[in-house]
Amino acid sequence: MPPRPLDFESINENVKRAQYAVRGELYLRASELQKEGKKIIFTNVGNPHALGQRPLTFPRQVVALCQAPFLLEDPNVGLLFPADAIARAKHYLSMAPGGLGAYSDSRGIPGVRKEVAEFIQRRDGYPSDPELIYLTDGASKGVMQILSTIIRGQGDGILVPVPQYPLYSATIALHGGSLVPYYLEETENWGLDANDLRQAVSQARYKGITVRAMVIINPGNPTGQCLSEANLREILRFCYQENLVLLGDEVYQQNIYQDERPFVSSKKVLMDMGPPISRELQLVSFHTVSKGYWGECGQRGGYYEMTNIPPETVDEIYKVASVSLSPNVPAQIFMGLMVNPPKPGDISYDQYVRESKGILDSLRRRARLMTDGFNSCRNVVCNFTEGAMYSFPQIRLPPRAIEAAKQAGKVPDVFYCLKLLEATGISTVPGSGFGQKEGVFHLRTTILPAEEEMPAIMSSFKKFNDEFMEQYEDHRGYSRM
Amino acid sequence: MPPRPLDFESINENVKRAQYAVRGELYLRASELQKEGKKIIFTNVGNPHALGQRPLTFPRQVVALCQAPFLLEDPNVGLLFPADAIARAKHYLSMAPGGLGAYSDSRGIPGVRKEVAEFIQRRDGYPSDPELIYLTDGASKGVMQILSTIIRGQGDGILVPVPQYPLYSATIALHGGSLVPYYLEETENWGLDANDLRQAVSQARYKGITVRAMVIINPGNPTGQCLSEANLREILRFCYQENLVLLGDEVYQQNIYQDERPFVSSKKVLMDMGPPISRELQLVSFHTVSKGYWGECGQRGGYYEMTNIPPETVDEIYKVASVSLSPNVPAQIFMGLMVNPPKPGDISYDQYVRESKGILDSLRRRARLMTDGFNSCRNVVCNFTEGAMYSFPQIRLPPRAIEAAKQAGKVPDVFYCLKLLEATGISTVPGSGFGQKEGVFHLRTTILPAEEEMPAIMSSFKKFNDEFMEQYEDHRGYSRM
Repeated sequence: MPPRPLDFESINENVKRAQYAVRGELYLRASELQKEGKKIIFTNVGNPHALGQRPLTFPRQVVALCQAPFLLEDPNVGLLFPADAIARAKHYLSMAPGGLGAYSDSRGIPGVRKEVAEFIQRRDGYPSDPELIYLTDGASKGVMQILSTIIRGQGDGILVPVPQYPLYSATIALHGGSLVPYYLEETENWGLDANDLRQAVSQARYKGITVRAMVIINPGNPTGQCLSEANLREILRFCYQENLVLLGDEVYQQNIYQDERPFVSSKKVLMDMGPPISRELQLVSFHTVSKGYWGECGQRGGYYEMTNIPPETVDEIYKVASVSLSPNVPAQIFMGLMVNPPKPGDISYDQYVRESKGILDSLRRRARLMTDGFNSCRNVVCNFTEGAMYSFPQIRLPPRAIEAAKQAGKVPDVFYCLKLLEATGISTVPGSGFGQKEGVFHLRTTILPAEEEMPAIMSSFKKFNDEFMEQYEDHRGYSRM
Repeated sequence: MPPRPLDFESINENVKRAQYAVRGELYLRASELQKEGKKIIFTNVGNPHALGQRPLTFPRQVVALCQAPFLLEDPNVGLLFPADAIARAKHYLSMAPGGLGAYSDSRGIPGVRKEVAEFIQRRDGYPSDPELIYLTDGASKGVMQILSTIIRGQGDGILVPVPQYPLYSATIALHGGSLVPYYLEETENWGLDANDLRQAVSQARYKGITVRAMVIINPGNPTGQCLSEANLREILRFCYQENLVLLGDEVYQQNIYQDERPFVSSKKVLMDMGPPISRELQLVSFHTVSKGYWGECGQRGGYYEMTNIPPETVDEIYKVASVSLSPNVPAQIFMGLMVNPPKPGDISYDQYVRESKGILDSLRRRARLMTDGFNSCRNVVCNFTEGAMYSFPQIRLPPRAIEAAKQAGKVPDVFYCLKLLEATGISTVPGSGFGQKEGVFHLRTTILPAEEEMPAIMSSFKKFNDEFMEQYEDHRGYSRM
């Protein structure tokens, strides 16, 4: 029998080429162990609610009311819902004819897009046009929409940081483009250097690749750094010179754990630079309800804002969005609530502030606990997590551990992470899933386990790591031949 | 200045090639007119809630409680929610660690996938494996996942019915494949003929195209027909002989408006045929929460079931699904509720049956009202809408109308539909958006306007149409030269 169209040997090679380590071998092994009854601490994905973070009350009240609009006519509704949540539910239902069960416009509900534009304007101090804001089923879907519009084939290259969040490598592979890596410098706190960027572009050109876009992740995933304004200016200037679209993945903009380098958006820095660059450079910026102190990952809500993209292209993207009809409507409401939260004087304001501050303060403490914990371990060094939700420690594997990994047919950091998983139940992602320099090894973990469990997790990590190093380090040099 | 990467001339040509008439020129014009204050009846998209259909109460209660799980601890919850909705919300929350705010497994919540498998088994009388059921953000996203796995390039062809729902043509264009049309026979109540299929495949082969899959839409969109078991057997045998995957778009399986031809699933017919075909033919079947009497379009929930797809491919599809992390979780709960509705004896059972029967009976009456209405119009003929949500009347345009369209630079049926829109506010989709035989013209309308408004809509249509025909028909043959 010849292979059938969905037999492995006959499916699209781009599908096979795409790799997504965040849910790769380690995750699959962890799922197996969990089925066997082992307690697993899933730190492979930035999925705060799965690790016990509670949702913010006010937005959930509003969306519950939007799902069950008949409650709004119930005389008892005030016993379960505060008046401002009721008012806000009516506000969103008035914007969404047919309610949550009707497809919205494929770009999202106009009223919510307006709220997003107002948020951006408050944040950056520059006008934002709702017509250039598209709502999406999470930021990932937005990135895919834009990359599929840019990539025409193998000859098109996208500059992606290494280490990177594998959404980018996977999406580029799926669309048959070429990933052009640029390295973040670990010893410079994961900063990036415009000279390295230039070199990456020349090397790609030498291979016949047209570099068309550059991705930055700020704050960094998996690396946790916050880019300075000066660095952003340099990046924007570089993109302008090289005629690249800048894709600004800014989904962690609320997750900042130090005061020296607050988040600054690419859009603001671009506008600050003035014409001609501010009127010409093409920029797409992404945001989400999944991160921040919201962590509403399962709702799948996001947006992107397009800057200096001509109307014909904006219309083409609209057309493509319309093939999937509309982003899910409940998450559009979450987005509206995120960019337009309760205000001082609202009934729910104090609770909202208390809950969000509680989460953010705790994340800040956990970022510190985790990086300090890693730095106390043998052969482990870790930059401080300035922002985002991850620590990305370097694990200095002894040659004998690398050798043992080879024997086991595993990449060295996969070998280490699997041993860690089996010994402690901590499910991480090996650095090789994000890219790293040759011969250097890392792992990524989220900083999301509950604060009270953090000391036990870090000491269980330390115990495993130090024993692992003990086992594989070469104390007895004389015994080697 | 050279074109920038997101300028129109430099974006991916496949994006430009994709067409999606359901939200095309007519829809955009209708949106403009609405902004100007004109009353528009949007019958371009099967979007029942937007036209006033009310959501079923029980599922909305359950999902509202899942969104606001703190209500479950409130002593007053019983004043607003019945006990079975409360119990069911606890049931789904127990399956979804972290609740609606956490990413689920990328294939969907295991417990919901199990409920889907049980539903399929009850429906077809054959076992169904939850491991081969993937939940999606609506059926469209599922179709895209599968087509992107099948299509490797321009040389790969997909058999698609004409007229067809343009999701297929658009997705094939986006992935750079080739659409291979097969015609449904209007005079045979939109049936299909295996000989025509064979001819379509040979013609494609002659052009160097490898046909790899066949799409059927049953009940039909836009055509409304229900396929008989005999016809399905013929299709399955044809796919087996030609080594094609069958993609069964069965999203309208609950929408049946006659008793002679009930819905039968492709999976059941395949299993009835026995080995070897039942063990070898590759089939993917799609379903959704957007249609049926649910009409929960805005929630974006769907599933597909894979039959005879080998585990390696199932794993590859899992990997690709994992790049977007997970389908939205609230819609997964809707899917669970749709396949596992209240049972006799449950508190909410009577209400659930009353509501769903009310919707379905009314749709049946509207299908009749609409097709009868069309058939009473000059130069209009329309097959009865046996199922789905659409009528697809043929409009016999007089030569002078075709000439006038040409003068206006419009495709003839677009010309007609634009005039209809301007005169009556009825927003339809021209048949050319779905494909039709050369020189034959149609429009698609949903049967979804409120039943009480239907007579007025149909008489406003008739008035427009008959005047249009009057204007363009050539009564005075002598005056033509």
